[in-house]
Amino acid sequence: MDTQNAKPSFVQSGWRLIDADIHNELPSLETLFPYLPDYWCDYCNESAFRGPDANDYPKGAVTSAQRYTTPSSGNPPGSDLELMQEQVLDAWEVEYGILTCAYRVQSVHNPDLAAALASAINDWQIEHWLEPEPRLRASLVVPSQIPELAAREIERVGDHPGFVQVMLPVRSQAPYGNRRYYPIYEAATRNNLVVGIHFGGAPGHPPTPVGWPSTYLEEYAGMAQIFQSQVISLVIEGVFDRFPELRVALIEGGFTWLPALMWRIDKEWRGLRHNTPWVKRPFSAYVREHIRLTLQPIDAPPNPQHLLQIIDQLGSEELLMFSTDYPHWHFDTPDEAFPAGLSDSLARKILFENAHTFYRL
Amino acid sequence: MDTQNAKPSFVQSGWRLIDADIHNELPSLETLFPYLPDYWCDYCNESAFRGPDANDYPKGAVTSAQRYTTPSSGNPPGSDLELMQEQVLDAWEVEYGILTCAYRVQSVHNPDLAAALASAINDWQIEHWLEPEPRLRASLVVPSQIPELAAREIERVGDHPGFVQVMLPVRSQAPYGNRRYYPIYEAATRNNLVVGIHFGGAPGHPPTPVGWPSTYLEEYAGMAQIFQSQVISLVIEGVFDRFPELRVALIEGGFTWLPALMWRIDKEWRGLRHNTPWVKRPFSAYVREHIRLTLQPIDAPPNPQHLLQIIDQLGSEELLMFSTDYPHWHFDTPDEAFPAGLSDSLARKILFENAHTFYRL
Repeated sequence: MDTQNAKPSFVQSGWRLIDADIHNELPSLETLFPYLPDYWCDYCNESAFRGPDANDYPKGAVTSAQRYTTPSSGNPPGSDLELMQEQVLDAWEVEYGILTCAYRVQSVHNPDLAAALASAINDWQIEHWLEPEPRLRASLVVPSQIPELAAREIERVGDHPGFVQVMLPVRSQAPYGNRRYYPIYEAATRNNLVVGIHFGGAPGHPPTPVGWPSTYLEEYAGMAQIFQSQVISLVIEGVFDRFPELRVALIEGGFTWLPALMWRIDKEWRGLRHNTPWVKRPFSAYVREHIRLTLQPIDAPPNPQHLLQIIDQLGSEELLMFSTDYPHWHFDTPDEAFPAGLSDSLARKILFENAHTFYRL
Repeated sequence: MDTQNAKPSFVQSGWRLIDADIHNELPSLETLFPYLPDYWCDYCNESAFRGPDANDYPKGAVTSAQRYTTPSSGNPPGSDLELMQEQVLDAWEVEYGILTCAYRVQSVHNPDLAAALASAINDWQIEHWLEPEPRLRASLVVPSQIPELAAREIERVGDHPGFVQVMLPVRSQAPYGNRRYYPIYEAATRNNLVVGIHFGGAPGHPPTPVGWPSTYLEEYAGMAQIFQSQVISLVIEGVFDRFPELRVALIEGGFTWLPALMWRIDKEWRGLRHNTPWVKRPFSAYVREHIRLTLQPIDAPPNPQHLLQIIDQLGSEELLMFSTDYPHWHFDTPDEAFPAGLSDSLARKILFENAHTFYRL
């Protein structure tokens, strides 16, 4: 079977599909030069700067890309629109694909350079992805380490109809519930944009609360704990009370950890809520109203029944949004991209309706 | 009903009970003076030092203690042996109670003072808890921030039959899989002691991988993520391969997060294990062989059936050990201390057999 161009059997005839996590990758730093002020082009040519110092998808790691997603040009997987059209949009009959550009300007220490790179990459996204391909929507890259500059970038291009989301890496300098990030949430909600919190980032902090791990496997697998920290922070520090219109997507962070987290915080909140009087409802109620999660990668248990139990324990059919995470496909065959055994009604929600509503497509 | 002295109904007539998490609290720093060298007594009297700068159980927090556990002397809950005998050992007919002294010498920056305090508190535990009460076993307090000094303390008193465990706070300066901690594991296994990783600690790192949260609720509830980071580190950095006899208890960290964690790491290990060739088996196999978890506090879901699903998803009946976490009782009535609906055989394992085997009582 031609795996890389096969339509998965879970997409029934006539079923609509949204892929909520497709990576568009920058071919190289030089790609941005037409969109950068001369000053920063000169800087990039003359300095040691070769791009953000973050490497969420190490070349060759099995978690990074299927081999056949590398373009014949030798450019990085995910950098070629035609190949993406062929391998995802056409092959899977995707109606909307949401681009999640993981260019990590958030790791650039010079704030003006970070902001200039963000603007350049967003202009590049409009010209090279959104304009030629109407099925695509995109995520704004913003220098979230300086929330005021991030908000300015959101105001600059956030009203372009192709952008549906502001992307923040899950690793950050402070928990995202911290008030310093309010300018981002204000600009995102004003522009009707989802805030997408995505796997990765390199803010300077170790990726665990107990310091640096020794191996990539720990760092990769431990990312799910960072998502949990961010969700706790967003709800408990009151972001959704301050911004009741805010929608947050958790992208590439898994979801099997969510029921246990909801039980824990719901319970402890009952005893400790006098310390956070702005939190009016149980943690799980905020999650179910404001937060959605992309499907891939699935931390699938050996017993498929256990996965169905977890999906049931989420307590809502609205939370999951189908994604392939192209080109970081974690499945060997397309059929493995979706859990077996769901009802038709729930499958349709996950494959299309949840993202369609959430992103207001 | 006299709640504080009631025997819970889940303890059937004739069933044996081990409480794997009872806190013995130091009345005050001065309590240690008879066990400290004169030099350090003078130091404590003359300096600003008033004890370790860690406060895992803030006075008055509902997560810290039930009111009726405060002794009439006004000393801290858990500091009075007679009250503990009355409220736990006698009332619940406990056959063995494992003391988990949470005096955080690991937060003391002066290594010699930290080591002296650890020795003093262990000698105090022998005299005031182990000698007068044969049902009790205890946990060694060690200055784990300096593993060589911790190992020396383990060698000093680790062969006392009352000590069954070395306690490490879950918050640490480095992940516990780091090789710097090997002297502790070597000494613990040589002395036939469990290593107990316990809620709390204040090593200097923020308690999340994205910096400091703003509220106590976040810090308290987020502790489950730190346990997850430590378990990943222990297995993936190869501690159990290097110390095949090592047994690790996770105390007061919950357990509902464990199935999802096992699924995630088992899956990612399959693709990335060439980076960690010393890890010979799936993560879950190490967990099931080497790790046990205390029952309280339970992050109980609103639907009791979901908790039974999680216990089933653990994939082993040997993992959980009953605990009350006295005096930090998280339940209002004794009957809430144990999940309803378990088979008699599983209930007996959790209530007694698992801890009996694990601690070799």
